[in-house]
Amino acid sequence: MAVPPSTYPRRLLPFFLGLFQAALLLFFALFVTYDEPSAQEKDTSLVANQVYSTFPFFQDIQVMLVVGLGLLLTFLPRYGFSSLTHNFLLLNFSMQWALVLQGLLHHFHHGQIHLDLHKLLISEFAAVTVLISVGAILGRASPCQLLVMATCEIPIYLASEWVIVTCLGVLDVGGTITIHIFSCYFGLGVSKALFRATQQPLHPKETPTSSSDLMSLVGTLILWVFWPSFVAVLCQPGDAQHRAILNTLLAMSASAITTVVASSLLQRDGKLSPGHLQNGSLAGGVAIGVVADMAMPPVAALALGSLSAVMCILGFRFLTPLLGRKLTLHDQCGIHNLHGLPGILGATASIV
Amino acid sequence: MAVPPSTYPRRLLPFFLGLFQAALLLFFALFVTYDEPSAQEKDTSLVANQVYSTFPFFQDIQVMLVVGLGLLLTFLPRYGFSSLTHNFLLLNFSMQWALVLQGLLHHFHHGQIHLDLHKLLISEFAAVTVLISVGAILGRASPCQLLVMATCEIPIYLASEWVIVTCLGVLDVGGTITIHIFSCYFGLGVSKALFRATQQPLHPKETPTSSSDLMSLVGTLILWVFWPSFVAVLCQPGDAQHRAILNTLLAMSASAITTVVASSLLQRDGKLSPGHLQNGSLAGGVAIGVVADMAMPPVAALALGSLSAVMCILGFRFLTPLLGRKLTLHDQCGIHNLHGLPGILGATASIV
Amino acid sequence: MAVPPSTYPRRLLPFFLGLFQAALLLFFALFVTYDEPSAQEKDTSLVANQVYSTFPFFQDIQVMLVVGLGLLLTFLPRYGFSSLTHNFLLLNFSMQWALVLQGLLHHFHHGQIHLDLHKLLISEFAAVTVLISVGAILGRASPCQLLVMATCEIPIYLASEWVIVTCLGVLDVGGTITIHIFSCYFGLGVSKALFRATQQPLHPKETPTSSSDLMSLVGTLILWVFWPSFVAVLCQPGDAQHRAILNTLLAMSASAITTVVASSLLQRDGKLSPGHLQNGSLAGGVAIGVVADMAMPPVAALALGSLSAVMCILGFRFLTPLLGRKLTLHDQCGIHNLHGLPGILGATASIV
Repeated sequence: MAVPPSTYPRRLLPFFLGLFQAALLLFFALFVTYDEPSAQEKDTSLVANQVYSTFPFFQDIQVMLVVGLGLLLTFLPRYGFSSLTHNFLLLNFSMQWALVLQGLLHHFHHGQIHLDLHKLLISEFAAVTVLISVGAILGRASPCQLLVMATCEIPIYLASEWVIVTCLGVLDVGGTITIHIFSCYFGLGVSKALFRATQQPLHPKETPTSSSDLMSLVGTLILWVFWPSFVAVLCQPGDAQHRAILNTLLAMSASAITTVVASSLLQRDGKLSPGHLQNGSLAGGVAIGVVADMAMPPVAALALGSLSAVMCILGFRFLTPLLGRKLTLHDQCGIHNLHGLPGILGATASIV
Repeated sequence: MAVPPSTYPRRLLPFFLGLFQAALLLFFALFVTYDEPSAQEKDTSLVANQVYSTFPFFQDIQVMLVVGLGLLLTFLPRYGFSSLTHNFLLLNFSMQWALVLQGLLHHFHHGQIHLDLHKLLISEFAAVTVLISVGAILGRASPCQLLVMATCEIPIYLASEWVIVTCLGVLDVGGTITIHIFSCYFGLGVSKALFRATQQPLHPKETPTSSSDLMSLVGTLILWVFWPSFVAVLCQPGDAQHRAILNTLLAMSASAITTVVASSLLQRDGKLSPGHLQNGSLAGGVAIGVVADMAMPPVAALALGSLSAVMCILGFRFLTPLLGRKLTLHDQCGIHNLHGLPGILGATASIV
Repeated sequence: MAVPPSTYPRRLLPFFLGLFQAALLLFFALFVTYDEPSAQEKDTSLVANQVYSTFPFFQDIQVMLVVGLGLLLTFLPRYGFSSLTHNFLLLNFSMQWALVLQGLLHHFHHGQIHLDLHKLLISEFAAVTVLISVGAILGRASPCQLLVMATCEIPIYLASEWVIVTCLGVLDVGGTITIHIFSCYFGLGVSKALFRATQQPLHPKETPTSSSDLMSLVGTLILWVFWPSFVAVLCQPGDAQHRAILNTLLAMSASAITTVVASSLLQRDGKLSPGHLQNGSLAGGVAIGVVADMAMPPVAALALGSLSAVMCILGFRFLTPLLGRKLTLHDQCGIHNLHGLPGILGATASIV
């Protein structure tokens, strides 16, 4: 690089983002349009009903990703504001990028892409993978590195999703396999590639304070509350969606209690670890995704929620230090424990 | 007890909770099932409509209880994280426990309990009583004591609700009598029983700071915003539900303004007390519950909201210190002022 | 004034507010009523559907105004609690005052005003103007001054809205002109009138800290998430509403990214300014309001979002210091940059 590296990235970020926005504008000008409004009263009422049945779910998911996930990542006290900002920026960037790619791949008819709320929702699901992967390198990568990661991850996600859902015919309504497992191992790979040789000591600003833990827990609780909307939004309306909501609620509730049990037993002083609570409570939601709408007895959702929380806590206690020591693999937020292990558990359950 | 009491409770909590989860799994495995999915298209659309008309209300109530009430309880600065955690744990525990008991009492047909969103909602209402009662002993009781309290309170609540609603035929859509008054006096009784003799001085960590007051006020505002969903969710769809929403909105709005008036007049320096604002603004919601869906003029909702706020502030200013002095009765969050007095006012109004 | 000015306003606030509540009670008792409940099953289902299609939007808007806007205003650290309180008080006061005035002006039939959710929503829109205008004088005006401002602003808003919408026939579904532009210049006028001569130095408590910036950003994100509900709630159900949601989502997303680009380019050290992010991300929502439901290509929403963010950031960087220097005009929150400039941009776009 001709420019010294200390000032170069500062200018690279706006340059890269600005170019992307200009390209997006051009792409939208050339190819993207809305459906022709229909004159039929019956069609109007159909569109209205679709909006009313999707939009509340969509808003719940937006709150989860923008506010809930953003706050969850603020547990590093001096990195709190940046976490929230980077999460917000990456969500928007990845969503727009996924909108372009998905439009080109799946919805390109007669040179036009017809935009609707469902396509925005699908793009948002793609953006979630980036937001999860970021957890592995939180506070260690520059905004530019994060954007490059997002740029690469979205097409790989779309390809892997196409293979899993379309080719292999796997039903994965809550994205356990396509989103959680994929983004976890992608993020770990990026972490390994970026910080290969360095067995860095814990950075001083990487110790949560009581105030940053509180904010982070609020983020967890927001994610916990709205998780059923995330799992159920793409289900068939009716019984399947009803079942997906109930199963997710049961799994989340079992996770919350089992996390307290497992964390208290494992800590020497019997105190609850904030990090365990912030992650373990959500493990059930990750695991239930792939089976949420299937016809299974409610006890299975409870069992899956409990088991995934146990695996998540065990992962934090034993696996993360082990991976750090043996493979020099850093996993800042413990995404392997929250998304990897419960995801594998859910995928195994779906085969059974 | 064989084990010294200082370490004993640390192990008791996970043991008790773990046993409860195991029992719950067994209970679900034996008795709980979902409705058979119907093949009829008409039934599917009926289920879908029920989900769309209940689920947004349900999510609002979840946000209230998990995030709003949790944050409201964080006003004790060094106890903030624990407040949020205990509130979350108790909600999940009480909800599961209420699900079991209500299933056995009301929904046990041919050896099976058919789970649906409405039953989860009813269990959540039962759990609210525990969360309110906790306010009386916040920061003074161990998690184990709280769980024991929850274990006892849920069956007593179900019995009292059965007497009030089924036997006496009282209409109480917003739970003013069955939830608020009941849980207030239950909580005060527990506080009296636990801290009978001790006229404890105010603990140093029991003084709110400006930052903890801010978080607590955010909790109040979340509760304030979503309260209409809580009151209206169980109403008859149509005019009754519409009226319940409007009445609650009017009562909450009148409460907010009257709280400012009453608090400014009572404080010697004319400054608004954060504690008054955090509680008084919600008093109208407590009082309106029992009459919200009745055919009454809008002015009654406004008057009830104003009056309940005045009673709540007067309670904080005069009654709480009096109870503390005369009866050595501690009421940490002032639940008697927020739930007891406005509840009695609402109940009186419903007779008129 | 007979009473010394230092204690006088302390008593003036509860007196003024108390009188207002009493007058409101009287007004409601005399004139306000609910619709007669209909016995027809068809009507009941119609009312239920109206509630289900409006209420989730209404709740989203309540969260925006009470929690989101309240938190956005907490960026002044020692004024945080007061910002949240004043915002809450003014919302309730202005909403009730607008309900009275709008009832008298538009809905007075046979001596009665029939209250419904739609009328409460319209009053809430009127109250938004006050909450925006307050931004110009945040932390510099007493609660009484704010209430007097609200008392004057609501009738002027109603008159201006009547002229713009009814007389001139301007379609302004998101309130770009009627709400944002109006309240911006009203607020600036009040700021000029109140602090005419004083070229005050920046008050020490007017420097945001990292913790107050974090809370303020959370407020921004809540506003950002729910903005589509604000723009779309009054649209025609069906295609127009669907389009309004999509256009707002696109504009908000473009704003967020363009804000990062523009802010990084303008700051000498390339760092993102918290104030820019807190305001610029929302500029697209202001600008899109007036054209959101029109049949325009999606690229127009993206372009409008990007352009308005650029104007907002340029305004913060160059116009606000200039106005402060040349006109001694203080604009505490930069409402001219967030509501004025993007509003004018949106209005210009609507003519095109």
